[in-house]
Order: sequence, then structure tokens, then C-alpha cells
Amino acid sequence: MDISALLTSAGINIGLCVVLLLLYSLLRKQPSNLSVYFGRRLAQERPKRIDSLCFHRFVPSPSWIVKAWETSEEEILSVGGLDAVVFIRILVFSLRVFSIAAFVCIFLVLPVNYYGQEMHHKEIPYESLEVFTIGNVKAGSKWLWAHCLALYIISCSACLLLYFEYKSIANMRLAHIKASAPNPSYFTVLVRSIPSSREESYSDAVEKFFSNYYLLTYLGHQMVYRSGTVQKLMSDAEVVCRMMRSENLAVKCKQNLFHCGLCGGPSKAFRLLSKGPESVKGKSVYKDLAPAREEVAAAFVFFKTRYAAVVASQILQSSNPMLWVTDLAPEPHDVYWSNLCIPFKQLWIRKIATLIATIVFMFLFLIPVTFVQGLTQLDQLHHSFPFLRGLLKKKYMNQLVTGYLPSVILMLFLYTVPPTMMLFSAVEGCISRSGRKKSACRKVLYFMIWNVFFVNVLSGSVISQLNVISSPKDIPAQLARAVPTQASFFMTYIFTSGWASLSSEVMQPLALLWNLIRRLIFRKKDDLSDKPLSFPYHIEVPRVLVFGLLGFTFSILAPLMLPFLLAYFLLAFLVYRNQILNVYMPKYESGGQLWPTVHNTTIFSLVLMQIIALGVFGVKRSPVASGFTIPLVICTLLFTEYCRQRFHPIFKNNAAQMLIDMDREDEQSGKMEEIHRQLRSAYCQFSPSFHDSCKPDQSDNGESIQDPEDKKPGEDSNKVNEPLALHLHIESKEPVEK
Amino acid sequence: MDISALLTSAGINIGLCVVLLLLYSLLRKQPSNLSVYFGRRLAQERPKRIDSLCFHRFVPSPSWIVKAWETSEEEILSVGGLDAVVFIRILVFSLRVFSIAAFVCIFLVLPVNYYGQEMHHKEIPYESLEVFTIGNVKAGSKWLWAHCLALYIISCSACLLLYFEYKSIANMRLAHIKASAPNPSYFTVLVRSIPSSREESYSDAVEKFFSNYYLLTYLGHQMVYRSGTVQKLMSDAEVVCRMMRSENLAVKCKQNLFHCGLCGGPSKAFRLLSKGPESVKGKSVYKDLAPAREEVAAAFVFFKTRYAAVVASQILQSSNPMLWVTDLAPEPHDVYWSNLCIPFKQLWIRKIATLIATIVFMFLFLIPVTFVQGLTQLDQLHHSFPFLRGLLKKKYMNQLVTGYLPSVILMLFLYTVPPTMMLFSAVEGCISRSGRKKSACRKVLYFMIWNVFFVNVLSGSVISQLNVISSPKDIPAQLARAVPTQASFFMTYIFTSGWASLSSEVMQPLALLWNLIRRLIFRKKDDLSDKPLSFPYHIEVPRVLVFGLLGFTFSILAPLMLPFLLAYFLLAFLVYRNQILNVYMPKYESGGQLWPTVHNTTIFSLVLMQIIALGVFGVKRSPVASGFTIPLVICTLLFTEYCRQRFHPIFKNNAAQMLIDMDREDEQSGKMEEIHRQLRSAYCQFSPSFHDSCKPDQSDNGESIQDPEDKKPGEDSNKVNEPLALHLHIESKEPVEK
Repeated sequence: MDISALLTSAGINIGLCVVLLLLYSLLRKQPSNLSVYFGRRLAQERPKRIDSLCFHRFVPSPSWIVKAWETSEEEILSVGGLDAVVFIRILVFSLRVFSIAAFVCIFLVLPVNYYGQEMHHKEIPYESLEVFTIGNVKAGSKWLWAHCLALYIISCSACLLLYFEYKSIANMRLAHIKASAPNPSYFTVLVRSIPSSREESYSDAVEKFFSNYYLLTYLGHQMVYRSGTVQKLMSDAEVVCRMMRSENLAVKCKQNLFHCGLCGGPSKAFRLLSKGPESVKGKSVYKDLAPAREEVAAAFVFFKTRYAAVVASQILQSSNPMLWVTDLAPEPHDVYWSNLCIPFKQLWIRKIATLIATIVFMFLFLIPVTFVQGLTQLDQLHHSFPFLRGLLKKKYMNQLVTGYLPSVILMLFLYTVPPTMMLFSAVEGCISRSGRKKSACRKVLYFMIWNVFFVNVLSGSVISQLNVISSPKDIPAQLARAVPTQASFFMTYIFTSGWASLSSEVMQPLALLWNLIRRLIFRKKDDLSDKPLSFPYHIEVPRVLVFGLLGFTFSILAPLMLPFLLAYFLLAFLVYRNQILNVYMPKYESGGQLWPTVHNTTIFSLVLMQIIALGVFGVKRSPVASGFTIPLVICTLLFTEYCRQRFHPIFKNNAAQMLIDMDREDEQSGKMEEIHRQLRSAYCQFSPSFHDSCKPDQSDNGESIQDPEDKKPGEDSNKVNEPLALHLHIESKEPVEK
Repeated sequence: MDISALLTSAGINIGLCVVLLLLYSLLRKQPSNLSVYFGRRLAQERPKRIDSLCFHRFVPSPSWIVKAWETSEEEILSVGGLDAVVFIRILVFSLRVFSIAAFVCIFLVLPVNYYGQEMHHKEIPYESLEVFTIGNVKAGSKWLWAHCLALYIISCSACLLLYFEYKSIANMRLAHIKASAPNPSYFTVLVRSIPSSREESYSDAVEKFFSNYYLLTYLGHQMVYRSGTVQKLMSDAEVVCRMMRSENLAVKCKQNLFHCGLCGGPSKAFRLLSKGPESVKGKSVYKDLAPAREEVAAAFVFFKTRYAAVVASQILQSSNPMLWVTDLAPEPHDVYWSNLCIPFKQLWIRKIATLIATIVFMFLFLIPVTFVQGLTQLDQLHHSFPFLRGLLKKKYMNQLVTGYLPSVILMLFLYTVPPTMMLFSAVEGCISRSGRKKSACRKVLYFMIWNVFFVNVLSGSVISQLNVISSPKDIPAQLARAVPTQASFFMTYIFTSGWASLSSEVMQPLALLWNLIRRLIFRKKDDLSDKPLSFPYHIEVPRVLVFGLLGFTFSILAPLMLPFLLAYFLLAFLVYRNQILNVYMPKYESGGQLWPTVHNTTIFSLVLMQIIALGVFGVKRSPVASGFTIPLVICTLLFTEYCRQRFHPIFKNNAAQMLIDMDREDEQSGKMEEIHRQLRSAYCQFSPSFHDSCKPDQSDNGESIQDPEDKKPGEDSNKVNEPLALHLHIESKEPVEK
């Protein structure tokens, strides 16, 4: 590939991007697309509708870019939560570090590469790309110190920036925890693997255990019930059936309780679901009303203080570590209910099984990737698609196909990966949606690093993959030979997978299409209660991190890649800010727990860059440069270990000091009783039809949580229950998720 | 090597062993050797002396074997503590599993090996050893199912036995914790990395922090002071100097306090060292008496209940994880004081440094090992030691030298390893002596497995070591080719390093020699207050485990090794029981924390055996047997993971349930106040000369803890202080270490 082909490819993609962005700026102004492009605003802010058919609706404008650029971090935090801020910080970090890298590499490394061999240079547009890579520097050259210096500058600035980012995100996390409104999850512990016995139910066992050992701080508990779809339907039917039969009973007790009647339903459900010690008294009257839901060996246990909950969650409870397993509970909206029913004893084997499945999936994916790699060799393409032969004879098409088609195919295959990994993470048994997303994110990340980077680098070169795995000692040298030759592939990868995916992200073609179909075919009107999507961290974070990996590994090998990468990060910065502001709605908050993964991946990229550089210096026979690189690797690893010691515990546990201070503050301000009252109704597994205000999980397969605030007050289907429903509504209205 | 050479070697060693054991049974009866062979009894039980010059003193007898055999496990537990029982359990487990293995392999595998090829068999004594190994089975043989079956039987029985051992040891540990007398370490937390500030001392900071956040359960604290030898000498001098100057003051206050006078010294020291909240009042009078000891950023904090201490030790205290780092304190005698002064921030880098040092040491050790391996080639021996040439021409000497000399040299080199690893573990910064020993034990273990097993197996075969490291995929096949050829070397290793080391263990040649020198040259009388040694777990555990590794890996390859190994384990069982009963005294108790290491190593041995078998079946072209081995490996790994989940947490933390029950029991029986009173004086770092009864750490370099009970009442150097000294004596007399 020569410079002109690269520029053709870049030009096509830039053109495509510009066209799509202009189109976006038009489409977003159309009222019919409001639900596609302003999902979050519709759900949370209800912007005024643009009804007038005025002129500016049909003029593309960059106003969204200006808005996205100007939005402050505080605004992002209030709109998208800490996780969104952390995601934007990844982009800011990448922009910073690759600006430095681009500056150093283009002014220092690129000239050294270009004049690396005494040769007759062609005009720049016809120059091969390889002239600009380190492959052009002759062996034993004394100019390799320039690469070594660039390596030092990039590594040191990356480490420094990483350190400050980690520090500032840790501080943000602490401030976020401190500042947030009382979160029920801080007071709640999820207990699993409750020992079963014939004499007593699980609920009694929990009550006995915690009121014995945590007498002073135990507040109450709530059992988890078996929840399959069939189970749920059956038990719902049973509730309705029993409710009808019990009307006599309800009428009887009308004299005593004012709001009885049909609302005996919810109040019973309420008592049943949030069964605290003092609710036991009233139980006998309604006992036969209770739906025959099957308890599983898991329960949410509520404590009086945050500190007590964190203590109960971290201490080994029983001398059999497989019993009374405690964890801090996830946020109410974050609970992945169907996984709570998995017996605890299965979990370890599920984890191993999904790990193996993931690895198998990663290797099975080699088949399409190898096919894609084959496409870059033209003659093989002729062979596979004979009908293309005439087309491919044109030089222009030739460039397009070899430079473009492989990445497009690879990208299409890659779209199947995140759902598969989400499935694996669900099977694994995560107790929270955010945990499942985090786990899927890591799996997708490993997958991408292996299949996008390593497989492409190694299968494209002479060495077959299995040979490489079997001789770890030679890996640096083999990578050093293989990586620079793949520079052109990865540049087009940045155009296609990077730029193009950003325009597709901002365009939301699928949602747009669905919206169109719904309007034109199903003739449905715009529905404000449409559920906005939540941010797909498990797809976007690995993608951005893989571009970071490419940036680091190619920075000194093929510095020409850096400007394109910088353009990607800049566009990503704008696009994702826009999306966070307008499209995605945060449904739960992991409190920036993504950052340790990001940090570790970046360190991995740095060390990989250094190891490849080590290999390159070895291949180029420059012992001095190799010698200087080894301490750099050691220092980077030491830096990682330091960061792990210094910051990582903050992302795993909350500090006693902070929790106790928060507890005291709440106690002094008298808020504690209000918090305790709300706690009992915070977690509810089933949402009977009359119980509208709290439906955390209507379908098990995804992100279908409806925020209580979306619901318009008039919509409750069962008017009779309004008093209680409204009461609960008010309770759950306080900003749990902040 | 043929069978006759093997038997020669075995015969020599058996003869040597018998002679040494007979000699031992004589020597132990001589009153002059009492302190060598009955160190523990002398220290704890004071047996009556054998003074009469009667006949049976000069007749060897096997009575010690009978005694060692008959002793019950309860007795071992009461005498040697749980750690000793765990050690004996390793031997019992090995005896059991290798009895099964020997039975299966000798009756099933050995005949298959022997008749594996159609060949003319010589008479058995002249048969080469290789005829009895798997090397004699021809490729593609259908009889390999016998090996596969044996593999299954050995693996399954080993896993079953391991499971029951783990379970029973976990139960023993729990029972031990429950039954033991109140242990101050359960009430105490070691706080490190106390933040420094100009306004307040470390002590004030600790007091402020814990009385703020742990108001209800905080009892008091005790600072750790800088302790170097120079520092100690200086501060001691200062104490004496100040004490002399303060006599005026002491006389002045005599009217008020009855027991003042010189005993102002200790009572001041006592108050200073155990500075609880209420001791502050009396401080001002004696303030100028306080020695200028420098506080370090570490303190022991005492809590009112065991549960409170375990909570404080496991919760993250501060939002900066590098401050207020808490751990459960070690037992008072177990504290490794000089390491407490290491700043916490250094620890992570020290750990990395010692890890690297250990690895470097392991590889440097290749030099002597390669040399030793060279000796098995006779011509190389001729070359190295030309003067031996005449001697080596004799066939008998030839057999002796090639079979015997290498292992002896290797053994001598191996003697330097445990002290080096102890040094590394001390530098690493362990806070307790038992922790240091455990860490050293693991290091020695890795070292032995690498240098005794792998290096010998691989350097003796055709493949050079580095080649093996660089191609992990081929390791099974290469091990399969290399391991059987080294059978004869490892058999002689069992004779020399195994049997011979046991006789040397029981004979205690160094202690005997030292005793002799002291008596004959220094003319010292037998001193009853001689410090008995503590059991060298870090030397003996790795040794026993390496023999287990040899047993597993060679069981189906060279079954002839098993009878010799069984003999070793039987002898070891007797010898170590005898030594635990008579010689070694437990000084601190880790509560069976060795077992997880033992378990993991045994699993490693099992998996290694299976991987080698996989390689062997591959080399012998038996795909069926290979196919059956793979599920075995997977099941073994799953079994390990299950055990890790089920048992390992018990060895790391104590369960809340148990601790709370123990606390309640003590509170109800009214013992708690007594425990609290004792707690304040349990940990004392410095032992001024007048403070005899509590000197946990007089020298930093080893096992020099003198038990308070050894001291005879009349020996106190400063009679004036007797009242207080005696008082403290009584306090520390309660059985802290049980």
C-alpha cells in the first residue's frame, strides 16, 4: 500500500463521516426522530417539541458539536453518572497521551525512519507506507536512540497521566459516595447459601441468625423467591385467584383497618416482601393470602448503618465458608434477580465453565479472521470470488478492496461478540446488571485484544500462530518482525472500525430504521414512555481501549498512524459526550468501577509496546537501545504494582472512616429513620399489576428497567389502590440513583 | 545401573541407618546428652535424671520406636501443638496413598513393564533397572490400559484422602481455636502506616482514631518503638542514667506510693508500654523518666472482644488504602519486632525484591547441580578428579561413586538453602516468626521442586533446559522421555537424602558435637535452662513434599521406587514423632496454616504425574490412554478449586459466628475482665534488665525466645524489683501459648 492508497481510503472515510454527521444534524432536528436522538432528554427532562416547520430544520448545523464540546464535567456527572465521566476520561487520557506521542514521533521518529536507509526516494504520494515505518531503518543504525527516547517519553508521560487520572477518579468516586443521597444498597447485604433445615424456613433461619449475631444492627430482611417466567406467571395467577376468594375476609376486616378492601393485596405483598421482625405479628390474618412462591436460599438483609452492612458483608460468617455467604447488595435497579436463584454451590463451576466457553469462542473466531486476512492477498480474493475478477482488474477497485473490504467483514463479525459475552456473563451468575456488564466488558476486551490485534498481526506474517504460542522466548522478536508489516491493515481498521463506527453510533441506524418502520408500517404515534437505552459500556470501552493499544504499539513503529488515531479520539470525544447528553440514560451506577480495568489494559498496552520495541531493537542489532528498554519495562511494572496497592482497594471496598462519618451525619440530622423506613420497600422482586411504582425487572433478558419517574400519574391501571400506590410512589421518588 | 548396584546402594544405606539408630538408642540414655535429645522434656517436664550407672544404659533398645509408635494424636497435639499434628498428618497421608500406589503398581504395572517387550530376560539381579520402567513397554502396546487404570486409582485415592485430611484438619483447627485459652492475639490488631503529623505523636493519632471510630470496642493501644541493636543499647543506657538521676524524685514520692523507690523504673516502663486511656493521668510525674525511644508508625491496638478485633483487621479503614493498615496481630511470642519498624510503604517493593532474589538464587543454584549431574558420567569424573582414576577402575567403587556421590554433594549444597530463604523471608517484612517460617517454607519448596526434580530430570536428558522452557507445548512429551531415565538417580536420592537425613535428624550430630565441645573444652556443666529448638518446618515440610512428588511422578513409570519410598515415610513417621515428643518445643502456633500449602503441592504433584503420563502415552502412541487421562486432569483441577472454595477461607480468617460465641461465653463466665487486664501486658517489645519475666525477643536473628517458665525464681538480677517482677511473672504465667 502506498501513501496515495492510504489517502484514498482516508478520504473515502472522511467523506462518509462528514456526510453522515451532516445527515445526523438534519435528522436530529426532525420531531419524528425525537425518541431516537433524545431518548434520555425525553425520559428525564421533557424538552419542548419543535412543531413549527421553520427553515432551520433543513439546514445542517454543527450546533451539537459546540454543545458537546462546551458541556462541563459536572454536567456529564449529573446527567450520565460517574460511569459516563469515567468513560469520557478514557478519551481525554487517550487524547492527551497520543498528542504527546504524535508530537514526539512525527518530529523525531518519522524523519529517522524516512531517511533510515540510503535510497532514492520517490515523490511522497507514490512512496510505499513501509518507508515510513521502522522497517526502513537499517540494522545497527545509530539513530535508534531516537526511537528509544520516544519510547521513554511516551511511557513516562503515559504513566504520569495514568497516575493522575487514577487519583482523580478515586477522589471522584469517594466524593460521589459521600455526596450521594442515601443509597439502600449501602445498608443492605445479600446473603446467599442459607443453610436449609426441615424445622424452619429459610426466612426463619435468616431471622434467627442475624438477630442472634447482629442484634444491635440488624433491621430486617427480605427473602428472594424463585423467578422463572413460568413461575412468575403461575404465582401471579395464584395471587389474583386468592385475592378474589379472600374478598369475604377483606370485608370482614374492613371494620378494623380503614384502607383494607382490595388494597389488602398490596399491603400484604408489602408485608410479605419486606418482612421485618415487627411485621410478624400481623402475618397470621393474611397467611393464606400469601402466594405459594418458593423461597430460595438467598435474602437481602437490612442493617441500621452503612458500617454494619459493610462489616457483615466482608467478615467470614460461618466456619463453613460455603454457608452464609455475604456480599454488599447491588442497587435496587441493578439487581439481576434471576441469578439470585442460582444455588451458591454452582457458582464456582459456572465461572469455570464460562471461562472455558469464552476461550473456546475466542479460538473459534479465528476461522472468520483467517478468512478476512486472506482477502488482503489479491490473488486469493480472485480465487474466492471469481465473479469479481473483472472488477478487481481496475487499479482503483483493487486499492479499495484490499484496503477496505477485510476490515468491513471483520467489523460485521465483531458485532456478534458483545451479545455472546453478555450471555456468558449472565450464565456466570453475576448478582447485578452492572457486574454482568463489567464482566462482559472484560471478556469482550480480551477477545478484541486477542482477535483484532494478535491474530491479525501473527496470521498476516510468515509465522503460523501455534508456533508463536509454543516459544514464548522468541515472541518479542517475532512480534517485532510481524507488527510493522501490519501497519497499513490497522490504519484502514481505524478508518472503518473507528471512524465509521462513530458515525454509525451517532446516527443510530437501527433505532432510526425501527422508528421509521413503526411510524410508516405500524402507524404508531411517538410514544414518550419509550424506554431509553443505557450506555453499552461493554461494547464501547473495549473498542476505545483496543484503539489505545494500537496507538501505543504502533507509535514508534509506524508514526503515521497517530494523526488518524488522534482524529478518531477527538471525534469519539464529541460523539460520546453528545450521546451521553441526549441518548443514553444511566439506570444504575457502578461508581467508576471500570477504571481499574482501563488502567490495567493501558499498562498492558504500554508493556506490549516496550516488549515489541525490545524485539525491534534486537532485530536491528542495537544492544544499547535494548539495554535501555529493559529498565523501562521493570519500572512500568513496578508503577502498576504501586497503583494497585494505592488505589485498587478503594474500588473494591468502602472505607470504614467514611461510612461511619456518613452514618453519624445522617443520625445527627435525623434522616436515619426515614432511610430505615424506605429501606424495607427498596428491593422488590415481583411487581404485581396493581403495584406500579416499583417494577425493577419485568423481563429478565436485558435492560428493560422502567424508571418510576417515567410513569405519568394518571396511568395506574388499578385506581382502587391509589392511596398505597401513591404512597410507595413518593417513597421511591427520592433520588435513589445518583 | 542394574538391580545389584541398586541393592548395594540400598544395603549400604540400610546398614548405615541401622547403625546410626542403634547408636542413637545408646546415646540418648547417657545423662550427658540429655540436653541434646530431650530438650523439650527438660524445658517443660523436668524428667528425673538417670544417675545410676546401670547395665541397660549400654544396651541398644528399640523402646523409643515403641514409644513413638504408641503416642496418640492427642498427646502430640498437647505436646507439639497443631502444627506438629499437621506435619505428622502429611506423613500419614503419604503412607496411606503410597501404600495404595505400591500395591497397585507392583502387582499390576510392574509385570506389564517387565514383560513389555519380547526379549531374553537375564537373571533378576543382573537385570538393568530400565527393564522395570515404562521405557520397556513397546510403543502401541495394548497393555498401557494397566498404567492408565493405575493412574486413575492413584489419583482418585489421593484426592479422596486429601479431601478427608483437609476436612479433618479444618475441623481440628476450629476445635483448637475454640478450645484454646484466651489468646491475646485474638483481641489485638496490628496497625501500621499511622499517618504522621507535626501536631500530634503517633500514639495520640492512634488514640484519636480508634476512640473516634471504635469507641465501644476500643480498649487501649501500645506503640511499637524503633529497635535496632544500637538503638536498644543507647536507650537502655539512657534509662539507667535517668533512673539514677531520678532517685531524688523517687525518694520524694515514697511517702505517697508504697512500692516506689527503684521500682519506679518498671512501673513507669509498664505504663509507658501499655498506654491505655486511663493511664494518662499518672504520666506527668514520670515523664522525664521515659527513655527517648523513637515511636514508629505502628501500634498494637487492643479491643474488648475478639469479634471487634477481627472486624477492625479486615475492614478498609481509610479512603487512602496505604494508611491505617490493619492486620490481626500475631501471638506475643510470635511477633517479629524488628520488622514492625519497616515503613509500610516499603513492603510491596521488598516483596518484589525478595521474589526476584529467590528466582535468581534458584537459577544460580543450577551451577552446582549441573556439576553434580556431570558426576554420574564416569568419564567426566575422571576428567574432573584425575587422582581418582586408579580408584574408579574398581567396579565396586565405580558403582558407589556414580550411585552415591552425586546425591551426597547435592545434599550438602542443599543445606545452604533454608537459611538463605529464611533471610529472604525476614527481609520481605513478615510481621510474625511463624509467617516468616511459612514464607520460607514455600520458597524452599519451590526451590526444591525446581532444583531437585526438574533440573535433574531435564539436565540429565538430551534436551538442554532453556529449550524446554521455550516450548511449553512439548513439555509433556519431553518430560515423558526424560523422567523414566532418571529413576535410578532418584532412587539413590531417596537413600542418601531421605534415609540418611532421617538418621542424621534423629542423631542431631551438630548438637551432639556442640554438647561434647562444651563439656570437654569449655568445661561447662549441663545447663537446664538451655533453649530447646523449635521444629524446623521450613526444612522438613519441603523435604517430605518433594519425596511425595517423586513418589507420584515415578509411581507408574518406575514402580520399583515405591517400596523404598514407603520405607522412608515409615521411618520418617517414627523419627519425627520421637523428635516432636522429645526434642523440639513449639514456641508459637500457626494453627495448622501449613496444610493449604501441603494440599496445593500434592495437587501439583498429582497433576504433574498426569501430565507426564499424558506425555508417556503420547510417546507410546496410545491415543485411548491419552484420551482417558485428559478428563482426569480436568477433574483433579476442579477438585482443587472446590477445596479452595470450601476449606481455604477457614485458614485465612476466623468465622464471626465462632468468635461471637467465644466472646459471649467469656463474658457470661466473667473471664472477660481478667482477659482485658492481661491484654495490656501481653505484648512487650523491650525487656529492660529488671524486667525478666517477659523477654520475647532478645536477639533479632532467630529462634531465641526464652520461655518465662524456664527461669528459676532465684535468678532475678535486680532483687529490689522483685515485687513488681513477680507480679508480672504471675500475669504472664497464664498459658498464653496453647
